[in-house]
Amino acid sequence: MNGNEDFMCLNAVREALKVIDGKWAFPVIGQLYYGSQRFNGLRRSLGGISIKSLTIVLRHLEELQVVRRQIFPTVPVTVEYSLTEKGREYRAVLMQMRRWGEKWTIDSGK
Amino acid sequence: MNGNEDFMCLNAVREALKVIDGKWAFPVIGQLYYGSQRFNGLRRSLGGISIKSLTIVLRHLEELQVVRRQIFPTVPVTVEYSLTEKGREYRAVLMQMRRWGEKWTIDSGK
Repeated sequence: MNGNEDFMCLNAVREALKVIDGKWAFPVIGQLYYGSQRFNGLRRSLGGISIKSLTIVLRHLEELQVVRRQIFPTVPVTVEYSLTEKGREYRAVLMQMRRWGEKWTIDSGK
Repeated sequence: MNGNEDFMCLNAVREALKVIDGKWAFPVIGQLYYGSQRFNGLRRSLGGISIKSLTIVLRHLEELQVVRRQIFPTVPVTVEYSLTEKGREYRAVLMQMRRWGEKWTIDSGK
């Protein structure tokens, strides 16, 4: 076992874990796969999320460069949230989770 | 988009997310990939984890049937923790996280 490689692996996985930290990160990312959305649109799609929670999770995902916040100079200004390439590629992680989850929960419930 | 399929997907991903909830679940699973371990061995490998935290995370993973707790009738009894098949197959999720993490953090640091 290579200690340095192990360390890199730990760091890489930790970086991926940061993205889905908290209750709302995954549902927000899931919604943004359908396309860019405005704050209130996201709130509606995620029925039940508070303004505060959505603000926090969007900032968190912006800091990780998973979500992009774009401001359009309309009157009043339009703010849209979308996934960056880094965010879109995170889909591979979620798909792998889905595969595992479907195998080990839905099957075992039969 | 199929609402029912979406719902199953959400549930499957949520099930996978439960596994790595908390600070210590990933390091514990990572250690157990090397083979079964006793409580104190795990504690040593994970330097810095408290008895309470390790107890909690092991119970959490046992409840999810990701970790198996086996008692051997030695004197005094030996208790060993190992990954179940469900736990071993979780590796695919962690490997996908690693791939994503390595692409998006180590590369971007160059």
